[in-house]
Amino acid sequence: MTEAPIGVFDSGFGGLTVAREVLDQLPHESVLYLGDTARTPYGPRPIAQVREFSLECLDRLVEHGVKALVIACNSASAAVLADARERYAVPVVEVIRPAVRRAMAVTRNGKIGVISTAATHQSRAYLDSFVAAPPSVHVASQACPRFVELVEAGVTSGPEVIEVARDYLAPLQERDVDTLILGCTHYPLLTQALQYVLGEQVQLVSSAAATAADLFRVLTDSGLLAAQDNEPVHQWLTTGDPDGFHYLARRFLGPEVEQVHRAFVGRADERLAAQ
Amino acid sequence: MTEAPIGVFDSGFGGLTVAREVLDQLPHESVLYLGDTARTPYGPRPIAQVREFSLECLDRLVEHGVKALVIACNSASAAVLADARERYAVPVVEVIRPAVRRAMAVTRNGKIGVISTAATHQSRAYLDSFVAAPPSVHVASQACPRFVELVEAGVTSGPEVIEVARDYLAPLQERDVDTLILGCTHYPLLTQALQYVLGEQVQLVSSAAATAADLFRVLTDSGLLAAQDNEPVHQWLTTGDPDGFHYLARRFLGPEVEQVHRAFVGRADERLAAQ
Repeated sequence: MTEAPIGVFDSGFGGLTVAREVLDQLPHESVLYLGDTARTPYGPRPIAQVREFSLECLDRLVEHGVKALVIACNSASAAVLADARERYAVPVVEVIRPAVRRAMAVTRNGKIGVISTAATHQSRAYLDSFVAAPPSVHVASQACPRFVELVEAGVTSGPEVIEVARDYLAPLQERDVDTLILGCTHYPLLTQALQYVLGEQVQLVSSAAATAADLFRVLTDSGLLAAQDNEPVHQWLTTGDPDGFHYLARRFLGPEVEQVHRAFVGRADERLAAQ
Repeated sequence: MTEAPIGVFDSGFGGLTVAREVLDQLPHESVLYLGDTARTPYGPRPIAQVREFSLECLDRLVEHGVKALVIACNSASAAVLADARERYAVPVVEVIRPAVRRAMAVTRNGKIGVISTAATHQSRAYLDSFVAAPPSVHVASQACPRFVELVEAGVTSGPEVIEVARDYLAPLQERDVDTLILGCTHYPLLTQALQYVLGEQVQLVSSAAATAADLFRVLTDSGLLAAQDNEPVHQWLTTGDPDGFHYLARRFLGPEVEQVHRAFVGRADERLAAQ
């Protein structure tokens, strides 16, 4: 059981930042990654559909015998955490709550910003998760629609990304936030650009790192860690085009992404089979 | 000039965690890494010798035409920053001061812990760097001699590292530190193990991440960033055995470490040439 892979699911590529954290911090663990790139992005879809697609993908990972599930997609985390915990016998970790807990732990002035895609911003998933915060805590959410495109184009430094970041972050700076949640798994690749714009007084909370911490805790406490001499084998699955996935995934995560295989999942299955 | 590599110097392998941050956050930049593994560790050596060895290595990187220098070694940072700034025309970034600034920015209760090798602990390099902190700030330093050995053996999760970490961290927990500086560039690979032991109320400050932030700022402000279409070429140099370096470096940083070449530097040169 303990040599079984950790299943990491995302609608696309962002979850690879979570996988990168797992590879760095848990070098004996195998990762089975599934990106539903044929149906990405999930954000603009109705929640019932996000739930359906997510459970189809998670089912596939569970069929492969994973020992734990990581939902590394903000839209999916908001939609299916409760369902997934009920449905699967293995532990389930997601990206929103670990980041919220971390932000509450680190803020000094109680002013917390959240940046995300437009869809996550509109879903109010982060604001809802702060419901139990004391009245002294103020949370401001900001949509940053261009960040995903910039990250996927490899533009994570230089004048363009700095200018875009300045525009998006200005309203949060005016509110004097001292803590910023990176509420999209693409954004850890913008860490230094964001820190540059905000200055070092502002604390960045990476949902990728917070999620990896949660996973580490769950595996340790459940006795599910692989042995120290386990030679990990990583597998990369996409519902879309394996070549396109391979190219971007290597940029996101590195050369550990070797062969990419196509996964046939749900209706993506039918659609792709018909091509 | 801007396509020139960033020179990253360490006495051994730890600086690869800084190089990893550069690869992730500045994907268009080339890295020229030099690990003085023939003469590592620097920590136990007299400061004059650390200075001599470090300047020999930094000279070699400058001869290769690097556009900036990163001193990714705590012992070397303490010993040669002032000399290096005087000696070289390119910007010089090191690991101690960025971590101290970051810790001052994030602590909430003013109680800051520093973990490091025995040599860095004894050098009081971190304590000296906190000299301007207000009297409300208390800094406690703790030597963690076994961590480097565990990281180099790939033991970053599981009961052994957790137990060792509990022992080392207990005195800092008794002092109620809310911020912990990882004062050795090996330690970012223990992030999740340390966070597990300390709980999420404690903030970890990675000198690798803080240094990468400093480098990002320096390159951006000096107009030294590579163009967005630059295809980076990384080079890995060691004064020691290239095969041994290759093995550990891939575990520290990943498969981006391809060919490793031997660098002949200073007396290490003579010693190796005589073999």
